[in-house]
Order: sequence, then structure tokens, then C-alpha cells
Amino acid sequence: MVYSNPPVIAAHRSIAGKKEGDGPLGMWFDALLEDDLLGQKSWELAESEMVRRCARDALDAAGLSAGAVDALLGGDLNNQIIATSFAAKKLGAPFIGLYGACSTFVEGLALGAALIDVGHIDTALVSASSHFCTAERQFRFPLELGTQRPPQASWTATACGCALLRDRGVGIKITAGTLGRVIDLEISDANHMGAAMAPAVFDTLSAHLSDTRQTAGDFDLIVTGDLGWIGRNLLMELFDRAGIDMPADKLVDCGASLYAQKQDSHAGGSGCGCVASVSCAWIMKRMEQGELRRVLLSGSGAMLSPTSSQQGQSIPGISYAVSLEMN
Amino acid sequence: MVYSNPPVIAAHRSIAGKKEGDGPLGMWFDALLEDDLLGQKSWELAESEMVRRCARDALDAAGLSAGAVDALLGGDLNNQIIATSFAAKKLGAPFIGLYGACSTFVEGLALGAALIDVGHIDTALVSASSHFCTAERQFRFPLELGTQRPPQASWTATACGCALLRDRGVGIKITAGTLGRVIDLEISDANHMGAAMAPAVFDTLSAHLSDTRQTAGDFDLIVTGDLGWIGRNLLMELFDRAGIDMPADKLVDCGASLYAQKQDSHAGGSGCGCVASVSCAWIMKRMEQGELRRVLLSGSGAMLSPTSSQQGQSIPGISYAVSLEMN
Repeated sequence: MVYSNPPVIAAHRSIAGKKEGDGPLGMWFDALLEDDLLGQKSWELAESEMVRRCARDALDAAGLSAGAVDALLGGDLNNQIIATSFAAKKLGAPFIGLYGACSTFVEGLALGAALIDVGHIDTALVSASSHFCTAERQFRFPLELGTQRPPQASWTATACGCALLRDRGVGIKITAGTLGRVIDLEISDANHMGAAMAPAVFDTLSAHLSDTRQTAGDFDLIVTGDLGWIGRNLLMELFDRAGIDMPADKLVDCGASLYAQKQDSHAGGSGCGCVASVSCAWIMKRMEQGELRRVLLSGSGAMLSPTSSQQGQSIPGISYAVSLEMN
Repeated sequence: MVYSNPPVIAAHRSIAGKKEGDGPLGMWFDALLEDDLLGQKSWELAESEMVRRCARDALDAAGLSAGAVDALLGGDLNNQIIATSFAAKKLGAPFIGLYGACSTFVEGLALGAALIDVGHIDTALVSASSHFCTAERQFRFPLELGTQRPPQASWTATACGCALLRDRGVGIKITAGTLGRVIDLEISDANHMGAAMAPAVFDTLSAHLSDTRQTAGDFDLIVTGDLGWIGRNLLMELFDRAGIDMPADKLVDCGASLYAQKQDSHAGGSGCGCVASVSCAWIMKRMEQGELRRVLLSGSGAMLSPTSSQQGQSIPGISYAVSLEMN
């Protein structure tokens, strides 16, 4: 989808947890949590509160009220996306609930941009969140067990990112978007999500480059969501095998950048909030500061559930991509 | 959203389970399941197979291959929407994963129509499914327990509906769509979903009527998704209190129509597949036969999760609406 009237990211906000704040990108986030509960009674309510605050802060930054928002497009990793829908209830704006696992933020950017492009809506909030504690107990084990994690596992980021899209104004433009296909190369290790998602990211990024007749050289940076170190290297290998030029210094993964090695996060960060917070903080701010002009941003999701894993199913991956441009 | 180039429903297919086949609408469905497992190893895989078959049959009916589909928009009630994402993997088309609980089908129709309206895509499949056995064990209790259900509970339909939207052709047109807000009047009984959703349906339907400057009189039928008997009567009461004319014989609920009282389904049918299958079967077929010309179709979702209920949260409701027109 090439947008004829490219929407503008009028404002963006990011919130991250303590561990994320202690990492190499810590100084880029707009807000850092002091504790995991944010004064709420449960981690799920805390995650929902992160979404609400991020959305409110993005609106404040643009000087808009929630009533001016035509749609909130968003989701999270919680079953039935409760973090986002409970935040949508407090916000009061029309809500488009999405589920693309960790790709949700970029899914929302591509869809929101399409709806604004053609004038169906003027203003959209796009958000995605994750919380280590809600994800861990839902997808893996109770935190209290202190279960050991294999080296290929990623660490679900406690983070939220929210972008406010408008039909006009000054800022980063979303110029094109690609909707990905579900790709599954039969990886069934639910701890090895980078490997499960890399083929989908390859499929979507190469489709986006070929459909828009561009190469990696046309972008200052190509950003992937949460492949982590292992998945990022597998993606490089896929580009190499396909004979598509992809300079190693141009391909940056949000998950692989979020934590320092000594933070014990193994393969890197993951979760809906990873690409959402890192792109709203580290990427968009550098674009606005003039360091980056054209960025190809992709998100990737592992569409597994504990039920599908327990039933021995492999992990379907999906990926979406958008071109961002700062003039 | 009023669509300037209204997309056409080029084909639609419905699949329903045995209980649904035995109900008053049984003869309208395109296919009935002989057993709940469909030859698969689990109910989840069976539900996914329902989605795949429905999509395939809709494509066959229009003489299209899966490669011609620009996007599959859909979802289901399973955690992480695995029924739909595993079907999307087999289909191979670009996938937009949605979560709007039981409103997902109408959410997909409104979004898919918007994307086609403006030419971003030409052909979209919209699907939603539910399966009594997958939903019951995920949201309530293991089926083997034989737990007694309270009288206000609804029965999750084993059903799937799929509509193929195209940018041109002959058939039912989608002329307008309304994206709903999350509305929550603090109902916290997870068995009383009709009551939780009725205020959201009221909000969306009255917004749709008022935004398009129409009244109930402009439609031959106003169809709600899965409010059931109780929720449908509450909705009538809300219209009455607001002074909005809504003739009782014009307001039909898919859930309240799906089963006969003697089938022991209490408040009526629910689940993503309820409005999807009933509208693809009973409503769209009657439109094509000339019995109905203008229909206002809404879906409603209860955005709860077992976690939010166990934490004592109330049930946020959401609703989407589309205007359907047969010339």
C-alpha cells in the first residue's frame, strides 16, 4: 500500500520498565516505571495503565483531547487483549482491536495510515504494549517458580509505545505499508521465536523493497521488531541466500538493542511493547533530530498460543512493514 | 465511514455444527459438521479447519484462487486467535489479525470495506469462527465436568462465516461502516454477556443511524450479533428510553435466532461464529433472494478474559456496524 496522502506521526510516546531503563536505550524513553505494578492491583491492570498513560501523553503532546481521536488501533499479548481494551474504555475513542502478536504496532501503523490516507478518519492512535510479568505467567510459568530459561529465549519487554497519526502537519510521514503473510517453517520450540519469525520478516521486507522498487540502499536504517540476536543473524542469512543486498550495519533489531548482554536477557527483548517503545523512542526521535531520514520499520509476531504449543503445533510467524520518512 | 466505492460481497460461505444445524436456521447454512472434530486431533485444529474450508469455499464460489486475495481479515475467540492464524498460514494470503471478541466479523467487514473502497486492496476475505468446545474449556470449565449453566448464559456457536469482498461486481454492497467505542456499564457476571454488550450495540447503532441521517425505517431489518434474548430485550429498552424509534419486529438478533428454546441454549447463541455464520447464511441469502433490500448489521463483543474476570473486573463491550444494500 503506497499512501497518496501520507499520514504524519504528530506525536509519539514511550514508557518502559526498570530493566529496559537500565539498558543501552534507557535514556531514549519518555517515561520509566518505578515499579512493575504502577500502583495497580495486578500486572494486567498495570499494563493497561501503561497504555492509557502513553495514549494520554501522546494526545497531550499534540494538544488534542481524546474526543478528537477517530480510532485507537492497538493490541497486546494478553489473552483477549485486555490491556488495550480496558485502556480503550477509559480513553473513550472508537477502538479497532488487533492481534498480530509482537507485530501489532506495525500492523496498526500500516492499517491506521491506510484509513487516514483515504480520509475515512483524520486522527488515529496506534499502540502496543507488553509486560514481562503478564506475559511470563500467561505463556510460560508462574514467576514465583524462578524457572531457568534456555539461551535462545527472549525477554518480554515491559514497555508500551503509542503514535498519534494525523492527516496533516509536520513530522515523520508514513509513506508505504506492506501486510505480511503467515509463514511457518515448522519451528516448534516456543523459546526460539527469533527463528520462527525471521522467515516472515524476510518475506515481508523483501516484498516491501521489491513492490516499491527500492533496495536497502534507499534507507538509512532497516529496523526489525524483536528477532533478537539469533533471529537477526538468521534474517541476514536469508537475505544473503536470496542474493538481496543487506549491509549488516544497516539492519538493526529493536529486541537485540534493548538490553545489554550483561542484563541476562539471552536472545534479546521481545513482546508487543518492544518494537512499539523502541521505535517511538530511539528511532523516531533520531529521525526528528535529523540523524535518520528514511527508515524501513518492520514488526514480527509469533502467532503461537500455549494451547497450540502443548498440542505440538509449530509456530506461524507474521510480519508487517512501513516506510517512514522525515523531510 | 461512508464508502464512496462500496465493495461488493462477491461470495459468502457458512459452516455450522450439529446443534446449530438442528436449530431453526439449520437449512440456511452451506455446510453442517458431522462431528465436532472434523477429522482433526483437537477442537482447536477443527475450528481452524472450519475457517480454512469456509475461505476455500467462498473463493471457489467466486472462481478465485487464494493467490488473488489481497488480505484475510479475521479472528476468533481462541487465545492468540490460533484458529484463524493457522488457517491463514494454509491460505497463504496477507493476514490482518483482529480481535473484537464476537464483534470480529463486523469489525472485519467495516475495515475490509474501507481498505477496498479507497483502492488499497481489491479483494479481501473476512472471516470469524467459534467452536463450543474450544471456547468452553478456555473461558469456562472442562467439558468433561458437565458444569450446570445459569439461565442467563449463552451457548457458544460452533460455526464459521466467511465473506469475500471485491471492489466490483454484482451482489450485496457494503455502503457504510461505524467503528464502536468500548462501553462498560459495570456488568461483571461473565455469564451475562448480553447485558454487558447491549449498551455498546445501542451506542454504535444509534451513532450509525444518526451519522448517516437514517432511522430504523430506512432498513428492512436491523440485525444484532449475539445479544441473545435477554440482551436483545435490554437493547429495545435502551432505544425506548432514548426515544429512538425501533420497531420490535425489525430488530433481529442472530444469537436469539440460532437455537430453538427446547435446545437448552438458555439466552441464545454467542461466539464469533454466530453473527458470521448467521449473516452469511440467513441474512445475505435472503437479501440475494430479494426478500430484504437494506440491512443494518451489527456485531458485538464482550472484551473480557478469564484473567480479567478472576481479578474482579467488569466486562467492556464493543460493537461495530455496517450497512448492507442489495440493488
